[in-house]
Amino acid sequence: MLEYKLIKKSKDTKARVGEIKTNHGIIKTPVFMPVGTRATVKTMTPEEVKDLGAQIILSNTYHLFLRPGPEIIEKAGGLHKFMNWHGPILTDSGGFQVFSLSANRKITEEGVTFRSHIDGSKQFLSPEVSIDVQNSLGSDIIMAFDECAPYPATYEYIEHSMNRTTRWAKRCKDHHKNTDNQALFGIVQGGMYKDLRKKSAEDLVAMDFPGYAVGGLSVGEPKDIMVDILDYTTDFLPEDKPRYLMGVGTPDYLFEAVEHGIDMADCVLPTRIARNGTAMTSVGRVIAKNGKYKEDFTSLDENCDCYTCKNYTKAYIRHLFNVNEILAYRLLSIHNIYFLTKLMENIRNAILEDRFLEYKKEFYESYGYED
Amino acid sequence: MLEYKLIKKSKDTKARVGEIKTNHGIIKTPVFMPVGTRATVKTMTPEEVKDLGAQIILSNTYHLFLRPGPEIIEKAGGLHKFMNWHGPILTDSGGFQVFSLSANRKITEEGVTFRSHIDGSKQFLSPEVSIDVQNSLGSDIIMAFDECAPYPATYEYIEHSMNRTTRWAKRCKDHHKNTDNQALFGIVQGGMYKDLRKKSAEDLVAMDFPGYAVGGLSVGEPKDIMVDILDYTTDFLPEDKPRYLMGVGTPDYLFEAVEHGIDMADCVLPTRIARNGTAMTSVGRVIAKNGKYKEDFTSLDENCDCYTCKNYTKAYIRHLFNVNEILAYRLLSIHNIYFLTKLMENIRNAILEDRFLEYKKEFYESYGYED
Repeated sequence: MLEYKLIKKSKDTKARVGEIKTNHGIIKTPVFMPVGTRATVKTMTPEEVKDLGAQIILSNTYHLFLRPGPEIIEKAGGLHKFMNWHGPILTDSGGFQVFSLSANRKITEEGVTFRSHIDGSKQFLSPEVSIDVQNSLGSDIIMAFDECAPYPATYEYIEHSMNRTTRWAKRCKDHHKNTDNQALFGIVQGGMYKDLRKKSAEDLVAMDFPGYAVGGLSVGEPKDIMVDILDYTTDFLPEDKPRYLMGVGTPDYLFEAVEHGIDMADCVLPTRIARNGTAMTSVGRVIAKNGKYKEDFTSLDENCDCYTCKNYTKAYIRHLFNVNEILAYRLLSIHNIYFLTKLMENIRNAILEDRFLEYKKEFYESYGYED
Repeated sequence: MLEYKLIKKSKDTKARVGEIKTNHGIIKTPVFMPVGTRATVKTMTPEEVKDLGAQIILSNTYHLFLRPGPEIIEKAGGLHKFMNWHGPILTDSGGFQVFSLSANRKITEEGVTFRSHIDGSKQFLSPEVSIDVQNSLGSDIIMAFDECAPYPATYEYIEHSMNRTTRWAKRCKDHHKNTDNQALFGIVQGGMYKDLRKKSAEDLVAMDFPGYAVGGLSVGEPKDIMVDILDYTTDFLPEDKPRYLMGVGTPDYLFEAVEHGIDMADCVLPTRIARNGTAMTSVGRVIAKNGKYKEDFTSLDENCDCYTCKNYTKAYIRHLFNVNEILAYRLLSIHNIYFLTKLMENIRNAILEDRFLEYKKEFYESYGYED
């Protein structure tokens, strides 16, 4: 079961506020989804993730397919129960990781054979296998198995790949068994070619999915091209279904996504840069592990009221990074996840108050553009 | 300020229940103190440590002396504020680490020169330096600078070392400036030689410290010798002062410590073995990362009501270890700290109910002796 309710459209952009109803709760959109790749949002408990304002998390089919394997999670009673997260979960299809992480992959119409990035074992994923795995996981939103094509790529490559992704989407839809509890989203591909984006979107919309993702963006292309293709693509997506831009998590890309009609986005960025010692703050990125903070007894972000900023100084956090203590990764992960969930909450409120572009301008002036 | 109040003596052993009052709160004894070596109990926030029942934590002067340095912690307002732990803190003197971690050490009457285990830099610790550092840290209980002599060692070596430790204790006492807020404990040495233990204890007691530690035990000697020397030593310590056995954290050693008159103990064991994948449970140690648990959907310890045992299965914890997720270390650290704080609470209650030895027997029958 999945229902999208459009609550408010921005007057001068395609930004919109809505709600997605799932069997595990309601998601207020636009929403940023933290990533729990291997059935855990790195360094955090589920309760912490929830308390930071996260409404839905994403987990990765490719990783869970390899370890611990879908049969174990199914026996555990599904992914929610296995990992103790009782809110909504979205799983991707595994397609992206097959193309970005695995070795020796061979794509045929049937699916993809590849070598595991962990032990080199031979593996096979296809639309049917991906749906079977996601049915075992029991996530609330599941994704069609697609090819996330590289950038740059020729028109011929993208056309062929996109049409196969569309045929795979049809096979996913036909194979999906648990439609009452799990909503299957189609993924628009088509590279940086507008006519292919249009065809992909129209073919998928004709199949009537409960939601649509825009894939194959933020893969290395310049930002203006990303924005242009995104803006063009969302015009072909129905207003009464949620729209998800995959793999985006810097503040400026989130603003662009929302401005051009996106409701959902995900990225490992906030937790990954946290573990590398970097905080997103109201005045831009802060390299918290930098030695220059060793006697800085102010908080990471004076405009932030997260647990980390309320209780710890830069000097302490820098010390923890300097001695490789796990609490360092936790404190920055907490801060960065909170920063993005708060940003999306502010964006929602700005849309509701018809001041989305003003808020974007204010934020950019304070944050700068270094991301 | 430190006050010890004896509440109840066991009828058939030297076990006793008491309270230690410090400026940062009251400690119910016997107590196990988790270790926060580098100003953090590994993997945990201070709030979590407190919620697990920890009443006081230990932090290491040697490590904080080298990184970030006492001047930074002093500028931060002291260790409590720096690390956001507002309960009592005990710091050791650095002596133990100088002898166990550093290289090229040279002991003279003045103190110890050594090479840092981090960068090989030349360093110097002495009674005065150790007290200066601990005064900067502002911990509630500070320890005299001592030599923790090796085992085995000759009578001549131990006699010389113990007498120097006693002279160092006098210098620590003379140098200690912040007696209103920080209580300085003397450390009884003397190896496995009873007459030297007696002399050490008597000489220190004559100096009238607010508390006494027994050092130089659990350094490799057989358990029966440890128990014999401990039992002998505590007879020379005053009843109206707290007694601390350093570096002990297995359940059986904690039982023996309490049985022979000890009020306080510390060890890195529960958090260290947690990060290695081992849980202490009511039926003995469980190697949680073992592949045999991959489809075990029961909790770590069915008799435990900690956060980990209430919310996660062995299968999930084993998965987290298998993929090296930080939450694995957190969940086992939570469980192990809780296990020991709960054990000490049960021991306190057993003493109050005059059934300490019965409780010890019950526990041993369930736990086994593999520790």
